[in-house]
Amino acid sequence: RFHVDWDASAAVKDGYDYFMLKEIAEQPTAVANTLLGRISSSGRLSLDQMRLSDEELREIDKVVVLACGTAYHAGMVTKYAIEHWTRVPCEVELASEFRYRDPVVDRQTLVVAISQSGETMDTLMALRYAREQGARVLAVCNTNGSTIPRESDAVLYTYAGPEVAVASTKAFLTQLIACYLVGLYLGQVRGTKWGDEIRSVVRDLADLPAKVEQVLETMEPVRSLARELAGSTSVLFLGRHVGYPVALEGALKLKELAYMHAEGFAAGELKHGPIALIEDGVPVIVVVPSPRGRSVLHDKIVSNIQEIRARGARTIVIAEEGDEAVQPYADHLVAVPECPTLLQPVVTTVPLQVFACEMASARGFDVDQPRNLAKSVTVE
Amino acid sequence: RFHVDWDASAAVKDGYDYFMLKEIAEQPTAVANTLLGRISSSGRLSLDQMRLSDEELREIDKVVVLACGTAYHAGMVTKYAIEHWTRVPCEVELASEFRYRDPVVDRQTLVVAISQSGETMDTLMALRYAREQGARVLAVCNTNGSTIPRESDAVLYTYAGPEVAVASTKAFLTQLIACYLVGLYLGQVRGTKWGDEIRSVVRDLADLPAKVEQVLETMEPVRSLARELAGSTSVLFLGRHVGYPVALEGALKLKELAYMHAEGFAAGELKHGPIALIEDGVPVIVVVPSPRGRSVLHDKIVSNIQEIRARGARTIVIAEEGDEAVQPYADHLVAVPECPTLLQPVVTTVPLQVFACEMASARGFDVDQPRNLAKSVTVE
Repeated sequence: RFHVDWDASAAVKDGYDYFMLKEIAEQPTAVANTLLGRISSSGRLSLDQMRLSDEELREIDKVVVLACGTAYHAGMVTKYAIEHWTRVPCEVELASEFRYRDPVVDRQTLVVAISQSGETMDTLMALRYAREQGARVLAVCNTNGSTIPRESDAVLYTYAGPEVAVASTKAFLTQLIACYLVGLYLGQVRGTKWGDEIRSVVRDLADLPAKVEQVLETMEPVRSLARELAGSTSVLFLGRHVGYPVALEGALKLKELAYMHAEGFAAGELKHGPIALIEDGVPVIVVVPSPRGRSVLHDKIVSNIQEIRARGARTIVIAEEGDEAVQPYADHLVAVPECPTLLQPVVTTVPLQVFACEMASARGFDVDQPRNLAKSVTVE
Repeated sequence: RFHVDWDASAAVKDGYDYFMLKEIAEQPTAVANTLLGRISSSGRLSLDQMRLSDEELREIDKVVVLACGTAYHAGMVTKYAIEHWTRVPCEVELASEFRYRDPVVDRQTLVVAISQSGETMDTLMALRYAREQGARVLAVCNTNGSTIPRESDAVLYTYAGPEVAVASTKAFLTQLIACYLVGLYLGQVRGTKWGDEIRSVVRDLADLPAKVEQVLETMEPVRSLARELAGSTSVLFLGRHVGYPVALEGALKLKELAYMHAEGFAAGELKHGPIALIEDGVPVIVVVPSPRGRSVLHDKIVSNIQEIRARGARTIVIAEEGDEAVQPYADHLVAVPECPTLLQPVVTTVPLQVFACEMASARGFDVDQPRNLAKSVTVE
């Protein structure tokens, strides 16, 4: 098995003003490390500690993803990928809510528990509850030997390395990668994805570190926009499909770091209420799906952009390079490299991280230690 | 069959400044009307148009609730009730998102589509998609003969009467009632709830109009608090379990009407990010579950209130009469009558409606016609 050791140098800032900036910059490596050694010589995908037999995984009739905070947004992306690739129904739930209602889980339920630290108390308690009901548990975790992986039937480690900044960046990107791998693994075991299809997606995943690097190299306009908007009272975020969790994640980063009104919405919900918030000059960041993917998704978000712009919003559009349809409606355009539809969050999240980090420092806040927050939430 | 006719007088304001105020006041009647005639002489629960056989309903292995905006919050409450009463897994999804991913639904899926107007385009398109996959569809709707009921296999009408104000109030409360009835009906047909249990819950439901009336009679302190807080930039809302959708609904009302930063959170998520927003004097409205219900839920929210108060939040606590545990931590206490845990949203939502309405008018906005919004969203 390939093994990635954590490096002592990770504990210093390496010339960056903040750990968060360093960790944002480390994302291409973190993503690449999480992908290392996943395809065996026989061409099959493997996870780290798989104590569930293929037979057990074939009996699964439902996947429930449990997580909190940023990891919950990775879980939301997982749902789209797992249902598309495997046709197994997948629910995503806040661990703190799951634990205290009466969730229907049994021996045919696969619980995917996502936690950077592996010690998130809400997630751990939810996992224990699910195990009591007979569910199988697969952990996605960044910390070797922590409690959540120890109490799980299978583990997929994210090799992000130690994350020091309270606001998660590289851990999130590697959680996305891990969740794609879980989806593909289920597809492999259940035969809904053939070997060549899996290897093709893994190749697409392997292209992501270079694409994230490319995004990082073009962030100067995003930083200056953040400084320019530092006096705003609100920033709204819109997305559809896998862009919806990205919008939520962008808003959460801004809340955590810049302490401002930042809220993400499913773009389709706009007209059912949130559009009342649009007034002259409100910055709205829109995550646009690839025009080469499901065309109806792209069309609908273009019309959402037109609607909010007609009501005075300042539109900041994150779209694929060469997406000409959105250009006329973008006050600011952030171009990201082409990606397969389901993998797009790995690149579109990055400008939102940079935006939040720059805005927080422009507002004079300590990016690494936001007020009231702890890195790992080890109490319920 | 009992029949409730819509009254022409509904089109005038009856002395209220706004239709919304009138419609808030009509809620006891709306709730009572929606419950009328539901228990037959043989003691069995009935819906309005049930073209699904008991056998078909017994074959259902999953419920998917589809809705937008306020109706989505009613859907979230439904999930808790259906899973608790019937042990059938229930998912709730934004109609606009459901339609454009690859949802796993089939002939054993019961789709519950909730729409006041029956013409909500996102919900209609999602319903059609689900029907193409073979799903059975039950509509919860306030408008006789509208498109969504016509395209459904079963209908449960909410007898809220015409709702004129753009922001939904009485339609929401009756959607909650309708969803409880759907859950009980499923429980009746599948035998997970016995006749005496169903009649006992229906009696609890029948007590709600008087309880809503009681809340309405004690709203003056809420109105004066809203006027006092009209200059705030943010109001946050917290809830757990069925109080979580109530928190979301309270925030949506404030966004729609007062155009301010108002955001609802699952209280368990606080520590995973949103607590960074808490600073001196921020008003936080907390929906507290009954101390007579699941005690762990109540304990946890009391400690959430202590946490935010320690960080300077001004706590506005909506709790059951006689809930002494929360009193020391409530800067403002809004007492509501005792209710069974699952039914509590019917009473706790009301103060949030009154709060939003009063705050919007204190800020000088037209409560009935908020900017940018239409009553029924008949485009996607």
